[in-house]
Amino acid sequence: MARVVVDVMLKPEILDPQGQAVANALPRLGVSDVSSVRIGRRIEIEFAGEPDLDTAREIADKLLANPVIEDFSIRVDEPAGDAARMSA
Amino acid sequence: MARVVVDVMLKPEILDPQGQAVANALPRLGVSDVSSVRIGRRIEIEFAGEPDLDTAREIADKLLANPVIEDFSIRVDEPAGDAARMSA
Repeated sequence: MARVVVDVMLKPEILDPQGQAVANALPRLGVSDVSSVRIGRRIEIEFAGEPDLDTAREIADKLLANPVIEDFSIRVDEPAGDAARMSA
Repeated sequence: MARVVVDVMLKPEILDPQGQAVANALPRLGVSDVSSVRIGRRIEIEFAGEPDLDTAREIADKLLANPVIEDFSIRVDEPAGDAARMSA
């Protein structure tokens, strides 16, 4: 089982009110050194066999991203390195 | 300027109707070797100075994720390696 990850983010020139709302809430947490917050989508596609980046790109292009306002990037998921998965 | 990325995904035991809807649409694209699609959020936090993982964890815990149904992971963003950023 192999996983391809598609990250979909608003293009830099598109306003992100959701991220702005989070950024505006940070001073209440005592956080002052954050310059911006942008919120997008992460899609995990599990392939039954070998991961197929071309298929993933077609899925992203046709089903996952709106190319007018969003960019996407595609990668085969590697095992977590310095990432810390938090489970509550 | 340094960026921390927070990935928020539904816990594995939580149903993901949005991902299921994408998975159900795949046969129409001629894609049959995808076993599951899960859709979560990717949040990019730009720090004015050094990236601070502890601060990012506090932001994720208090503002970005719902710990009842979601897990999150935090990492400092590295320059894209095998990822291909698509811009339409």
